[in-house]
Amino acid sequence: MKIIVDAMGGDHAPQAPVEGAVMAARRYGITIVLVGKPDVIEAELKKHDTSGLSIEIEPASQVIEMEDEPARAVKAKPDSSMVVGMKMLKEGRADGFFSAGNTGGMLAAAIFHLGRIKGVKRPALSTIFPTVKGHCLLLDVGANAEVKPEYLAQFGLMGAVYAERVLGRRNPTVGLVSNGEEEKKGTPIVQEAHQLLKTMPINFYGNVEGKDIPAGLVDVVVTDGFTGNVIIKFAEGLGAMTKQLLREELSRDAKALVKTPQGAVLSLAAAGGLAWLATQSGVALGFIGGLLANTGLIGWGFKRALDRISQRTDYAEYGGAPLLGVDGVVIIGHGRSNPYAVMNGVRVAKTAVEQGVVQAIRDGIAGMPKAQSVSTGG
Amino acid sequence: MKIIVDAMGGDHAPQAPVEGAVMAARRYGITIVLVGKPDVIEAELKKHDTSGLSIEIEPASQVIEMEDEPARAVKAKPDSSMVVGMKMLKEGRADGFFSAGNTGGMLAAAIFHLGRIKGVKRPALSTIFPTVKGHCLLLDVGANAEVKPEYLAQFGLMGAVYAERVLGRRNPTVGLVSNGEEEKKGTPIVQEAHQLLKTMPINFYGNVEGKDIPAGLVDVVVTDGFTGNVIIKFAEGLGAMTKQLLREELSRDAKALVKTPQGAVLSLAAAGGLAWLATQSGVALGFIGGLLANTGLIGWGFKRALDRISQRTDYAEYGGAPLLGVDGVVIIGHGRSNPYAVMNGVRVAKTAVEQGVVQAIRDGIAGMPKAQSVSTGG
Repeated sequence: MKIIVDAMGGDHAPQAPVEGAVMAARRYGITIVLVGKPDVIEAELKKHDTSGLSIEIEPASQVIEMEDEPARAVKAKPDSSMVVGMKMLKEGRADGFFSAGNTGGMLAAAIFHLGRIKGVKRPALSTIFPTVKGHCLLLDVGANAEVKPEYLAQFGLMGAVYAERVLGRRNPTVGLVSNGEEEKKGTPIVQEAHQLLKTMPINFYGNVEGKDIPAGLVDVVVTDGFTGNVIIKFAEGLGAMTKQLLREELSRDAKALVKTPQGAVLSLAAAGGLAWLATQSGVALGFIGGLLANTGLIGWGFKRALDRISQRTDYAEYGGAPLLGVDGVVIIGHGRSNPYAVMNGVRVAKTAVEQGVVQAIRDGIAGMPKAQSVSTGG
Repeated sequence: MKIIVDAMGGDHAPQAPVEGAVMAARRYGITIVLVGKPDVIEAELKKHDTSGLSIEIEPASQVIEMEDEPARAVKAKPDSSMVVGMKMLKEGRADGFFSAGNTGGMLAAAIFHLGRIKGVKRPALSTIFPTVKGHCLLLDVGANAEVKPEYLAQFGLMGAVYAERVLGRRNPTVGLVSNGEEEKKGTPIVQEAHQLLKTMPINFYGNVEGKDIPAGLVDVVVTDGFTGNVIIKFAEGLGAMTKQLLREELSRDAKALVKTPQGAVLSLAAAGGLAWLATQSGVALGFIGGLLANTGLIGWGFKRALDRISQRTDYAEYGGAPLLGVDGVVIIGHGRSNPYAVMNGVRVAKTAVEQGVVQAIRDGIAGMPKAQSVSTGG
């Protein structure tokens, strides 16, 4: 088993991916290929004890930055870590690829250099979203602004395969996002996708509404990349709003309260609110960790509750989410991934390889009724 | 000035709408027409001092319930308060109509019995959404799952008129929801709408992403009814998720903490978290009020901050949001509207009448370039 880690990808690269790779190599006993600038990687590796670990370096002189326009960057930077890693995967020189870098870059590199699984109309970007019951797989979150009914049906199939084999859900439920539960709700494309999904060899729940996503009503949430993208960015915005309002309102009282008994109470409440925004928006739970570590005011009971919620919703625990439909295991981590998140991202890739996710999707797609592929093929 | 209030609409009907109507009649010195079952309304009115107030009763023997299927109910219940009120408005026997009842019912009743403003392709349901800077007008949130570019352009125009004349924004900015800032982002319909919006006599900001909505980047947020519906219900779901997770985690420690100093701290934090969920989801800020009133543990500083945030984001302060594009002033309040919210809903209707919103929309639509109406007319 050999998993590629993009040493140059993510807000904390190269430190976080290299440290996470070392952790993963040790914990899982597999070979990690760090792709990127050799001198940079070597300098980082020297900070860690790598004796006995199987860690390789694949040289790549360029980096696709977070702010690069994906399709253009993939063409302009043929020796970037993303392109080089994707080629390794394509050539069968590795089993899976994890990156916390530019999501669009990974998507473009995969489409250009890895290709789709035969029969898959469009690959889909997914994300792991926290819910009351744990988490769900949400796709597509941005690869396809416009979809055809068959794309959505395929997203449902691919999501179900992943949820069952990697997330460990037995007979996972699949829901289709719409503006109402009834199957007649939604745009004509959504209505047609609903009918197609009924014919798929999956546990199709039916339509789900926006409120059902955080409620954890289904394991896999299927939507077009336009709606999915708006959803995840809206969640991010709500978190930021809460933080800002709290900061503004509490700062008005700050001076008056300093050194009063209420001051401590106030700080505690602020910490709680901030922690909540992080949980609620499903991002940056490291944030909570920071608060917990730094805020001496937090009582142990509250801290324990927050710790558990944090663990239940922390992005780092999931490591990353798959790019589904491409002909290989590609896991994309959050830009803010810390070493622990990178290690978990490698674990996710390893599990996807072991569980034969790509082959299962290939089989599933091949088994789709032929009429569907013909009638709406894109 | 005569404003109709649906005495039978909302979770707290008839108590809340009748009490709110009495408050509005007193504060604004206008005539309120309570439409609904006369005996029920009279019984409620007896609980209040109505001397010197101008309050009329318009009999309606039926009620469109919250769970009724809108289009069907409007046809099956011709003597419902919604249909009767809408006919009054149509006949010019009143100037505006407020209801906190079934939103779809109000939409259907308005389309069937009031009609559209000449030239308006589709009416749009709007909502007032809290932001960092105050609030924005979001439309459409469910009237039109499928749209044409011209509908979106008209939503922008109607939203701008309302934001300027009722929300008091000078030269309000209008944003189009997409999956990226660049004008090439989005579905072909969104891309075409972007170009149309550029030609409108409004302050078009350009595309906005999901995160920009709570950030208050623009005054008016335009989207199709599918995406808008998913957004507002998703916000509702995030609030419920936070509440649920907090309840679960804190209850684990509750027994251990009761009667310890940390117990108080914990309760306070829980109250803060719950308050936050309410603020964040933009709903039910009465919820916060309840917490503030009932929780003796909340310190005054925190309470003051929450009070102010609550006021900044409380639904009741806005009263209701307009159904735009129909040929009359129709304001729809939250189902949970309390008397204060109803009073504010009446105020909003009164302002919309005084400011000539319907005529301004009529003029704006008439002034739209003819080519647009022809090329994409629906």
